[in-house]
Amino acid sequence: MTFSESESAIFIVVSGIVAICFSVFQYMQINKISLTPSKDGMKQPLTGDENLPRLVEIYNAIREGADSFLFAEYKLCGIFIVVFGVLVLVLTSRVDGDWKWDSGAFTALSFVMGGITSIISGYVGMKVAVFSNARTTVSAMAADPAEAWKGSFNTAFRAGSVMGFSLCGLALLMVFVLCELFRSHFKDWDKAGSDDVKRLFECVAGFGLGGSSIALFGRVGGGIYTKAADVGADLAGKVVENIPEDDPRNPATIADNVGDNVGDVAGMGSDLFGSFAEATCAALVVAASSKDLVDAGWAALLFPLGISAIGMLVCLVCSFVATDLMPVKAESDVETVLKTQLALTTIGLTAVLYPIATAYLPDKFDIPIAGSDPLDPTNVEVTPVKAWLCVCSGLWSGCLIGFITEYYTSHSYGPVREVAQSCETGAATNIIYGLALGYKSTTIPVTLLSMVCYLSFYLADMYGVALAALGMLSNLATCLSIDVYGPVCDNAGGIAEMAELPAEVREKTDALDAAGNTTAAVGKGFAIGSACFVGLALFGAFITRSGLRLEDVSLLGPKVFASIIFGAMIPYIFSAMTMKSVGQAANEMVKEVARQFKEIPGLLEGAPGHGPPDHARCIDISTQASLREMVPPGVLIMSTPLLFGILLGTDAVAGLLAGAIVSAVQMAISSSNTGGAWDNAKKYVEKGCVSIEVNGVQTVQPKGSEVHKAAVVGDTVGDPLKDTSGPALNIVMKLMAILSLVFADFFHSINHGKGLLSLPSTPYGT
Amino acid sequence: MTFSESESAIFIVVSGIVAICFSVFQYMQINKISLTPSKDGMKQPLTGDENLPRLVEIYNAIREGADSFLFAEYKLCGIFIVVFGVLVLVLTSRVDGDWKWDSGAFTALSFVMGGITSIISGYVGMKVAVFSNARTTVSAMAADPAEAWKGSFNTAFRAGSVMGFSLCGLALLMVFVLCELFRSHFKDWDKAGSDDVKRLFECVAGFGLGGSSIALFGRVGGGIYTKAADVGADLAGKVVENIPEDDPRNPATIADNVGDNVGDVAGMGSDLFGSFAEATCAALVVAASSKDLVDAGWAALLFPLGISAIGMLVCLVCSFVATDLMPVKAESDVETVLKTQLALTTIGLTAVLYPIATAYLPDKFDIPIAGSDPLDPTNVEVTPVKAWLCVCSGLWSGCLIGFITEYYTSHSYGPVREVAQSCETGAATNIIYGLALGYKSTTIPVTLLSMVCYLSFYLADMYGVALAALGMLSNLATCLSIDVYGPVCDNAGGIAEMAELPAEVREKTDALDAAGNTTAAVGKGFAIGSACFVGLALFGAFITRSGLRLEDVSLLGPKVFASIIFGAMIPYIFSAMTMKSVGQAANEMVKEVARQFKEIPGLLEGAPGHGPPDHARCIDISTQASLREMVPPGVLIMSTPLLFGILLGTDAVAGLLAGAIVSAVQMAISSSNTGGAWDNAKKYVEKGCVSIEVNGVQTVQPKGSEVHKAAVVGDTVGDPLKDTSGPALNIVMKLMAILSLVFADFFHSINHGKGLLSLPSTPYGT
Repeated sequence: MTFSESESAIFIVVSGIVAICFSVFQYMQINKISLTPSKDGMKQPLTGDENLPRLVEIYNAIREGADSFLFAEYKLCGIFIVVFGVLVLVLTSRVDGDWKWDSGAFTALSFVMGGITSIISGYVGMKVAVFSNARTTVSAMAADPAEAWKGSFNTAFRAGSVMGFSLCGLALLMVFVLCELFRSHFKDWDKAGSDDVKRLFECVAGFGLGGSSIALFGRVGGGIYTKAADVGADLAGKVVENIPEDDPRNPATIADNVGDNVGDVAGMGSDLFGSFAEATCAALVVAASSKDLVDAGWAALLFPLGISAIGMLVCLVCSFVATDLMPVKAESDVETVLKTQLALTTIGLTAVLYPIATAYLPDKFDIPIAGSDPLDPTNVEVTPVKAWLCVCSGLWSGCLIGFITEYYTSHSYGPVREVAQSCETGAATNIIYGLALGYKSTTIPVTLLSMVCYLSFYLADMYGVALAALGMLSNLATCLSIDVYGPVCDNAGGIAEMAELPAEVREKTDALDAAGNTTAAVGKGFAIGSACFVGLALFGAFITRSGLRLEDVSLLGPKVFASIIFGAMIPYIFSAMTMKSVGQAANEMVKEVARQFKEIPGLLEGAPGHGPPDHARCIDISTQASLREMVPPGVLIMSTPLLFGILLGTDAVAGLLAGAIVSAVQMAISSSNTGGAWDNAKKYVEKGCVSIEVNGVQTVQPKGSEVHKAAVVGDTVGDPLKDTSGPALNIVMKLMAILSLVFADFFHSINHGKGLLSLPSTPYGT
Repeated sequence: MTFSESESAIFIVVSGIVAICFSVFQYMQINKISLTPSKDGMKQPLTGDENLPRLVEIYNAIREGADSFLFAEYKLCGIFIVVFGVLVLVLTSRVDGDWKWDSGAFTALSFVMGGITSIISGYVGMKVAVFSNARTTVSAMAADPAEAWKGSFNTAFRAGSVMGFSLCGLALLMVFVLCELFRSHFKDWDKAGSDDVKRLFECVAGFGLGGSSIALFGRVGGGIYTKAADVGADLAGKVVENIPEDDPRNPATIADNVGDNVGDVAGMGSDLFGSFAEATCAALVVAASSKDLVDAGWAALLFPLGISAIGMLVCLVCSFVATDLMPVKAESDVETVLKTQLALTTIGLTAVLYPIATAYLPDKFDIPIAGSDPLDPTNVEVTPVKAWLCVCSGLWSGCLIGFITEYYTSHSYGPVREVAQSCETGAATNIIYGLALGYKSTTIPVTLLSMVCYLSFYLADMYGVALAALGMLSNLATCLSIDVYGPVCDNAGGIAEMAELPAEVREKTDALDAAGNTTAAVGKGFAIGSACFVGLALFGAFITRSGLRLEDVSLLGPKVFASIIFGAMIPYIFSAMTMKSVGQAANEMVKEVARQFKEIPGLLEGAPGHGPPDHARCIDISTQASLREMVPPGVLIMSTPLLFGILLGTDAVAGLLAGAIVSAVQMAISSSNTGGAWDNAKKYVEKGCVSIEVNGVQTVQPKGSEVHKAAVVGDTVGDPLKDTSGPALNIVMKLMAILSLVFADFFHSINHGKGLLSLPSTPYGT
């Protein structure tokens, strides 16, 4: 079976619409849960319903905090989109020394659309997450335990689905619309000898740039926000004033809860939206370089969209397994159900992707090797089977990397337990063991990445790499559902604690949260792996577009090698900036909390009728810090490739990208896993699982013991590593590359790609 | 002026002998200081001479501890040299499918000589360091303050000179002898069309491999030894039992003092000896590929040795400035005098290297571009001026990197003070700020490295890179003097403390030690920078020998790119291994100390007549741990390039090396500086420079305060980073590359360099 152009279009559009409808359906399911059941006349028996007003109050505080942050952040993003959009318009209009304003205008349009879509995705995700957190708590209050488990799990999982499916559907439809729109302008796309098809998809690439720029702000700003609040609340509460986490007296707790949504929902969402948009753009740009694919027709070119379309449908079908066929009935089910989702979609996609590949792609087609002569290219012959292998290698390696991440960050396994035990000799050994764990945890994921890189690159050159990236992202809707599930449950737990709900309710929300922590680790591993692949795919697309030849980007070129060394440093500067920002912002938060404890009478002692803590002030500190501190790292990441391209030329950019990607992936994995391990090591100690010998007797080290204090230090250090600098490195890998891709023609127009300085690339002077 | 062959030989040999004689002279100066002045009838008035017997006792304990470690380590090294020597003999005899046993035998001979020279250098350095530590203390006891300052500084500085000059002289003479010996066998070295000259210098390359292998054990073993003892002593003394550092009751202190010598003297010495040997080998191998240089004669080929020869002479002359012309008269002079040494030698060398370049090199000569067709190579024309520029760029960048390292690790400047202040909110913020500082500190050094890489590579291709590496190492004798000065003073201070000498003596040794800490940072930066350059030079020599072409090592080759990703991971696994080893060994040490405090009556209380602490047991723990734990990282570093070469082929090895070097240099700099910053932040707190607001009043945070405790956590975490994993990464960069270079022909003999698996390198199947 082969798809005709219209069949392909119908398939893509219908999938996108179905996904969006499904997310609306899931939202409506959540909406059925009332926060004021007695008023609404609903008669579900609830445990601890006398605390509902307090719960609603907290819910509203979080909601308002989230809204105020979103408004402030998106205002800044809006300004950025306009300003940078103009830059995109002007610079991308400059093609081979001519002004081609249509290219510029379309790229700028794509850029704006990408930015707006990313904002919408983040906005929807966060609104729904905040909307669902209190509803998850209320569901957990159901008197019937089985009902409570199923209800609360399903609410949180559905909140994730809303974001997952709406984001995927929206992204797919937007890309499709842009492709169709530009096709109607670049009419000669299928004519031999015309470069319309290349220009067409290069314009689409602006979509990825827009998505990724907003993702930068989302990840960096969100990461700083959430950790300033979290670290600040922890330090102030636990260290300075010695009161427990999520204690209602602590003025920073609401900011902490808002932060979970800002960082893990909006940030993660825009990050993965960026990956998705960029992987698609990379695949389209490379596909456009294949004469065979162009000759095979529009449907063949849109195979990348087909992968995402089928991916959403498979995820949709599988989601019913979690919510209805195999619902959660007890604590032990939660993790199994979530992991089953991942495994099921991976297996399902492996099966259905093959027919999709044969439906979209011709039986055989040549892909020109990146770096060979554009006029007389060396080709690699690709078949649907090879394409399918590329997609599957990405899909499976993403899944495996996720599970390996879990092994290194869950306290069910040896590595984290060893770190927890090392707290026996204090915080210093905890830190040493934790750092070592993170470093070591790169081994298998990086080995997998390099194997998939080799395989996909070998099978279909840069097209293969882009397909592997798309494969990794093909079950994105499910991954996002699982990712968002985590912070929703975390918030639900926080609300239960702050509203002082009965122990049996808190037990349930805690268990849901614990499973969320594990799956969050899986999600993070997946996000890093996919970012690395997207970066590679964009690198390939950049080479394809910039006309660099194999020998131009040889390790034996002085400029290339020097750029690689320099590029490998970028993730280090970037991490330094983001980590220090968190440290500073957390410091401000600590001081504010201390001030409130001092100035608000009765607050610290918890005296009856004490004045309310001033949450708004804390939220404001986090908001201001995140908006202020996200600018320098943003400038670093966006200006470096631009300066390299303008001053040093395209070969230097290639080296810069290679160095940055190679270095960032290692740092991202190790930062993320080190932080995750410390978090769970602390939880392991809190569960009473660590004991040491005191006077010859094994003694459990409870909360508050020296061992626990040592574990808390690790957890606090890990916070910015795992939630700020680590995940933000994903953006480093992708954003620098997509920026270079979008501006490839512009760079090439400066001294034929040699840059303003015209530094010689080789010792013999060319 | 142009050197004839015999003039060149005389110059090199005389320089080498002069250097060795000078080191003997310096040793004799130290030997004049008696540890038992009253017995020897010497009548110098000493402060606190009633404590001399105790001092001698401690001195002997350190000496014995050092001897027992050296014996155990070198036994293992001896076995390694024999076993690996046989492997070298067999594998390097395999050239282009033939057995050429002369190549193998000579390479193995070089390897053995390199290993033995490295052992001798480490042995001499450590013996002299241990010999001088107590003598530095005794000199500081002189009643006349000016005499005490000059005497103690000069003793420590001379101890450094003994090692610096004997090591450089010995290394130079050995390489020269090997070159001459092999020339008498490879008689056709100057005949056109013969590959004798290439085989000749390839055999010499074994010398670098031998030196670097032993350096691996020295750095890793020494690093684990010293930090197991240091961290163990700190944790046990400060954390567990709350007694001060270097307290005579703490059984781990002697091991700690031995460790300073093991790590910072023997380890650093063998590391830099390895750099020196390898840079020379790399330059010789590349020079041998230049027909012009071969035609110009033997002297022209030996230019790399000439650089080192003149370097030693300049260092020798400048050293009199420190000991005699501008002697130390007060505390404030110490740092100035040491830094003046660095600056003077750098300036002096810049001047004299130019005539040396013209004396050795022909007016113009072609160097074939690495990666061009060996039969019809593209050449770059090099002149003595260009060669001189390459050498100077290395020399100056080494010096600058050293001073920048100081900026980031000395508490005289902002960065460390900020870290110290961050202890206000506890250990966690201290760790966060410290990590951020380390990451950020890569910026300038890496930018410099990439600029020098570009410049030298552009001016003279791989020959330029090798010359830059040699330039960085040309004032090695001075750098080593300064490096060794540090641990000698550290020991001197420790001895003064343990022997309970009067405060005015301890003040002096502490001041000497403080300056030593600063210059140790400079030395570390220098060691990392030179290692990076040596690694690059060896990478270039490997490419030159393995016959890889420009396009074979393109970033666009799947195998190459996958290997780069994989290679960039190696430093992470390696760091994980070494850091965890320190953690585990320190744990053993803590337990042993706790046992002794419990079982030896009166020890902890310091009751009069209490049983002596069992130092030997602690020394044994460190020794055993270091010998056991240095094996796995050693196997990792040595087997990875071998397996890549045997299974995957030479292009994969090239990618592996590039990835590993690029990633290791960043990690090495950041680990080293983070650790150094924490160390000095702690010292800054101890000096009473950090105060916080308590109830509205700025209050100094003394030793023992919460702020100080937080600073101690950072210091302890930093120990393995700055003294184990960080410096050991130097070896990673170099050893993997020299190993690949030595086995380049062997790799090439397997399926024409495609490896046993014959994986295709590119999508189009070649």
